[in-house]
Amino acid sequence: MTIIKKSVLSMGEMASGAKLTVPVYFIKGTGDGPSVYIQANMHGAEVQGNAVIYQLLEQLKRLSINGDITLVPYANPVGANHKNGEYTLGRFDPITGVNWNRMYHYDESQIDRFVETLTSEDQVEIDLQFQALLLDGIAQKLDHNQYGLTTGQRIAYQLQKMAHQADLVLDLHTGPISSKHLYCPEYAQGSASYFDIEHTILIPDSFDGAMDEATFCPWWHLSKKLASRGINYQLRRESFTVELGSQELIDLDVAAQDAKSILSYLQYKNVIDSCEFTPKEITRYACYLKDYKAFYSPMGGMVDYLATFGDVLKAGEPLARILRMDNYGDGDALHYISLDHDVIPILHFASASVNQGTELYKVFSKYFELT
Amino acid sequence: MTIIKKSVLSMGEMASGAKLTVPVYFIKGTGDGPSVYIQANMHGAEVQGNAVIYQLLEQLKRLSINGDITLVPYANPVGANHKNGEYTLGRFDPITGVNWNRMYHYDESQIDRFVETLTSEDQVEIDLQFQALLLDGIAQKLDHNQYGLTTGQRIAYQLQKMAHQADLVLDLHTGPISSKHLYCPEYAQGSASYFDIEHTILIPDSFDGAMDEATFCPWWHLSKKLASRGINYQLRRESFTVELGSQELIDLDVAAQDAKSILSYLQYKNVIDSCEFTPKEITRYACYLKDYKAFYSPMGGMVDYLATFGDVLKAGEPLARILRMDNYGDGDALHYISLDHDVIPILHFASASVNQGTELYKVFSKYFELT
Amino acid sequence: MTIIKKSVLSMGEMASGAKLTVPVYFIKGTGDGPSVYIQANMHGAEVQGNAVIYQLLEQLKRLSINGDITLVPYANPVGANHKNGEYTLGRFDPITGVNWNRMYHYDESQIDRFVETLTSEDQVEIDLQFQALLLDGIAQKLDHNQYGLTTGQRIAYQLQKMAHQADLVLDLHTGPISSKHLYCPEYAQGSASYFDIEHTILIPDSFDGAMDEATFCPWWHLSKKLASRGINYQLRRESFTVELGSQELIDLDVAAQDAKSILSYLQYKNVIDSCEFTPKEITRYACYLKDYKAFYSPMGGMVDYLATFGDVLKAGEPLARILRMDNYGDGDALHYISLDHDVIPILHFASASVNQGTELYKVFSKYFELT
Amino acid sequence: MTIIKKSVLSMGEMASGAKLTVPVYFIKGTGDGPSVYIQANMHGAEVQGNAVIYQLLEQLKRLSINGDITLVPYANPVGANHKNGEYTLGRFDPITGVNWNRMYHYDESQIDRFVETLTSEDQVEIDLQFQALLLDGIAQKLDHNQYGLTTGQRIAYQLQKMAHQADLVLDLHTGPISSKHLYCPEYAQGSASYFDIEHTILIPDSFDGAMDEATFCPWWHLSKKLASRGINYQLRRESFTVELGSQELIDLDVAAQDAKSILSYLQYKNVIDSCEFTPKEITRYACYLKDYKAFYSPMGGMVDYLATFGDVLKAGEPLARILRMDNYGDGDALHYISLDHDVIPILHFASASVNQGTELYKVFSKYFELT
Repeated sequence: MTIIKKSVLSMGEMASGAKLTVPVYFIKGTGDGPSVYIQANMHGAEVQGNAVIYQLLEQLKRLSINGDITLVPYANPVGANHKNGEYTLGRFDPITGVNWNRMYHYDESQIDRFVETLTSEDQVEIDLQFQALLLDGIAQKLDHNQYGLTTGQRIAYQLQKMAHQADLVLDLHTGPISSKHLYCPEYAQGSASYFDIEHTILIPDSFDGAMDEATFCPWWHLSKKLASRGINYQLRRESFTVELGSQELIDLDVAAQDAKSILSYLQYKNVIDSCEFTPKEITRYACYLKDYKAFYSPMGGMVDYLATFGDVLKAGEPLARILRMDNYGDGDALHYISLDHDVIPILHFASASVNQGTELYKVFSKYFELT
Repeated sequence: MTIIKKSVLSMGEMASGAKLTVPVYFIKGTGDGPSVYIQANMHGAEVQGNAVIYQLLEQLKRLSINGDITLVPYANPVGANHKNGEYTLGRFDPITGVNWNRMYHYDESQIDRFVETLTSEDQVEIDLQFQALLLDGIAQKLDHNQYGLTTGQRIAYQLQKMAHQADLVLDLHTGPISSKHLYCPEYAQGSASYFDIEHTILIPDSFDGAMDEATFCPWWHLSKKLASRGINYQLRRESFTVELGSQELIDLDVAAQDAKSILSYLQYKNVIDSCEFTPKEITRYACYLKDYKAFYSPMGGMVDYLATFGDVLKAGEPLARILRMDNYGDGDALHYISLDHDVIPILHFASASVNQGTELYKVFSKYFELT
Repeated sequence: MTIIKKSVLSMGEMASGAKLTVPVYFIKGTGDGPSVYIQANMHGAEVQGNAVIYQLLEQLKRLSINGDITLVPYANPVGANHKNGEYTLGRFDPITGVNWNRMYHYDESQIDRFVETLTSEDQVEIDLQFQALLLDGIAQKLDHNQYGLTTGQRIAYQLQKMAHQADLVLDLHTGPISSKHLYCPEYAQGSASYFDIEHTILIPDSFDGAMDEATFCPWWHLSKKLASRGINYQLRRESFTVELGSQELIDLDVAAQDAKSILSYLQYKNVIDSCEFTPKEITRYACYLKDYKAFYSPMGGMVDYLATFGDVLKAGEPLARILRMDNYGDGDALHYISLDHDVIPILHFASASVNQGTELYKVFSKYFELT
Repeated sequence: MTIIKKSVLSMGEMASGAKLTVPVYFIKGTGDGPSVYIQANMHGAEVQGNAVIYQLLEQLKRLSINGDITLVPYANPVGANHKNGEYTLGRFDPITGVNWNRMYHYDESQIDRFVETLTSEDQVEIDLQFQALLLDGIAQKLDHNQYGLTTGQRIAYQLQKMAHQADLVLDLHTGPISSKHLYCPEYAQGSASYFDIEHTILIPDSFDGAMDEATFCPWWHLSKKLASRGINYQLRRESFTVELGSQELIDLDVAAQDAKSILSYLQYKNVIDSCEFTPKEITRYACYLKDYKAFYSPMGGMVDYLATFGDVLKAGEPLARILRMDNYGDGDALHYISLDHDVIPILHFASASVNQGTELYKVFSKYFELT
């Protein structure tokens, strides 16, 4: 029987002195498999990952566990608790506007120094030393610094400290109104087929502050550097941002499906000792991050979103039509929006009301089948 | 061929001096039917009414019009344009918190004075004089007053000035995530069956600041007062708040259906000279306003809404289950919410994340079939 | 040496499960004086009352206490912790827009019933029974009710339960940008001169949901009813809303002065056994609530507030000038705002940027000296 | 007599179709001096620059003008009109959180190409060609692009198009609660002494998206590149961010002083033909951007800001004290905050209520006298 250990992490204090905490669930494995870190709800409105962690725990209870597993729901309680009107305003710090998922730490300059001063070419040794370096970097940031940390840095660094201790990292997010999709580092695309997710965005090794990048970029850069020095090194760390669908929704039944999709990946990686999880036989499409395009509204108005997620939208077919009642009678009250090439729509904006320049859709513009 | 006259009303000035305007569409009828006033989007996020007005205009273009029809989309541009995060924060003035649909004017004390000084018992004459009284009341409010008006009063009074000139008033709203439903004054329940709407809330004659009340309460009170004096008077004015479904959505195809539902009512009232619109044969349920109950969350948490709108939910059956991952392992991670009597759920909160005390559901608690 | 007992009250749960609590400080008096309830920060941005409670506690520590004293800082942690941008959005529930200080409970209809069924004409007995009635009303509201309470009701009722147990109630607020002023029930104007506050608004006995009204209206109505029955009864309960100046400010030195002002009132009421506190010799002005007027901006624009708080502004003298750079060159870039009669400005809006209809100033329009 | 030409720029459309416009004031000079671009209010709450432009126009009307002057108040009406509660939420796009002053365009890679293909070493010719290159870059961005622009890019690029046509650029901002200070590129520190501003931050040539950087970085990089090639080139372009004091304030009298300070700089640069403006004789301090430090609150709480802007705060002296009433009686209710080295405080946070990690103060940490 799996033992789930629970602890609580302090993540911030509000003006009234209220302390916000985060529950951390830990399962000790036999040590025969890689370790995993899974977090959810870094963006306040993207709550479905909490339900997926619930369903994962319900499954893990009865499974044999090889690798250590850490699960962190409600990763960012400041974001999760911030309402504006009926909705949760949780993509960014309401005071500063900074995206909560752009505050992780990575100092690329340390790679060169690390490789130059390397005393062993043994992979296990390299891994240990490099992980120690990453953890030390975070510890330095969290350590006493008289000028302090921003609200978001304090949260991000505490999470990152746990994530750096794992071999595999899953950051559970959602889109606004969205189909499921996966952010996957280019080198790990072989793993994408173990998730029951039809659309994968392949991301390069440039760091932009997100959790997945903060945990795979260092190792990817390290492996490239070692390769350039002729040192044999196997890049085994993987990090994914798993986009579970739409925000502002909890569906425990869908979460049970998503938990199985994640368990299929964990079984493939030998984190769990099981053969019961099989990825769905579906056609999987991918595109490179540079081809994952945002379409911004050419006008203000109210939008009837027309395109179906996941299906190819042919050039010239409408993504959406925009209602402009103020033009009725003496102008065009309906504007159809389309592109001059085929795309696969993945998600659209959460509201029908848009300003000129609001991000209407995100689409795969140069997609290909993932094999 | 119907002529649609367009004009523009000034509704407010912002800090930069930007003027917000509202388009007003007017169709002059033959004069053989009652006049109608239809507005939409008084609450910023409740946009679907604009699409319904679009579809109404598209239909009215080709129909024969008896009564004058005034249609006002985007009735409250201050609300419609106010974003907080991705969503429209439009139920209340973002500065004061006052609900935009609680600022209309009605001075009940004028009824007694009016009836006491009545010089004729002829209905046409009474109607004319009473309408003049109502319009004069609004004019006094809008007239120069050195202390001024609030932002919401200025908007509400300008709309009310148009509404008071009509015999029938439709205020198009939506719920948060909601089925269609109708607010109908108790005396007009015979009209409710002409709308393709399954659920009707019957409201009494107490004024709480809303448009429908502001336009039917005076006439209802007048008719009661006249009856108490033994004067024969037929109450013919009607006002409805039509709840079109969920907020934050534009769907022009659904709007075409809703336009037909409204045209069915207008045909019944002889506003249009037509016999093509037939109300759907559906079972219609009603409840009194006092039995239209809000259920407030007994705890903070993340909600998986379970109950289906419009179906009877039996006593003890779950409305929702609330996820509390912080209790996983050492408490109840899932809480089921139910009531001890049968209800019909009509709408639920727009977000999965709730504080203790957030309105989770609204339900018909003592419902009956509307015949 | 005064013993200060501290307890903690649970005031709400957020979506992440975080519990918000409120510290309650209680000092047991000798019983020779009336009991007092003091709370602060019901509106989130109105924080200075917390500092005043700090300074009160620092003083009370060394004083002799006759009446029981309950002090509640951070009365509404949901409001206090709610940021939008840099500022605290705390006047109303961010989800519903309802003003946090309009949710207290009072059922006026119970007065008649209470007086009709009175079994004694003894004041002490009447007081005890009536207090029990009020407390029972709150208990009924807080008791299990399957439809639940709103977030604000749960907070308000818990506070009101404490307030109803006291003879004297002080609710510490602030204006936006404001001079100090006092809301005082008309019958208690003799007490106003014991506060070091120059401007007093005299309020009638109509209940609008605020804490002061919720605690003095019942007793005022009771005393009127008893008087109408010829029963001798002394109205001794008093409640004040003390407006400490501007919101979004903590100043511990000013708070020490305000604590002395409150102690002067408590000494006058014999709550503390002291003679060291003397109210300042200042001219005090009052006006009736109906003459405490809000001035709404006649246009959108950016405001240079000119009038000095507390000084008489002569008819025709400018309250403010509004900059409209969009009119520069082809219109009036500067608009001067004035009134046609003398007023005393008390507070103005918190921001320079206003919409048409924003409340610019609040002024005493028919003021008189308080003697 | 100076002729002020007014035009209007379209800056965005809202959901209701409302168009937001920006007034542009243009004064044609004799051509004997450098041209100037001055804008204000890119951040919504930072309104005082509009009043300064008002006072500048009032002065320029009567002065002799050598260089063309373009003045743009209300540069960002989307930001200026966005209220949340009483305050203006204008530092970032309320939908995306992106800082409005981080969206300007600069493609550093074009410098190399430009210098490599240079056909003349004449400064006038280089200036003309390089300006054409910059303007073409903006035109490409604004030109039809089927995926569109964000709301902020559309605003920023239109402003930048005007700014690139000027030799000198002043972007008028304010801090939250702040003393006056100046952002000045390191190479232009000689100009800082012509402003009546005591504190100057010297900024390097790295581009972070702001208007000042977007207009001086290209020319600075160009001049460095030309120097490295041995081409004689005089860097004459200058751009400053002028921080006028606190946000949420309009003071036309203070604005008249600030206008004179700017005119002193314009006179020094020969933009105006005048000798009436003399910079104040004040001690001016500077620090490098890397030494302009933000101090983040080590705890949540309510802040009594103690340090005086502009004065040296000695090591160990308190910046602020933080009230934590929840700790009264069983912990520290007051926490004093200090640093271990001397600093000059420049600004502090706008609200007394802070979360753990909120930016409390910004200070000059290694300051020196500017000579």
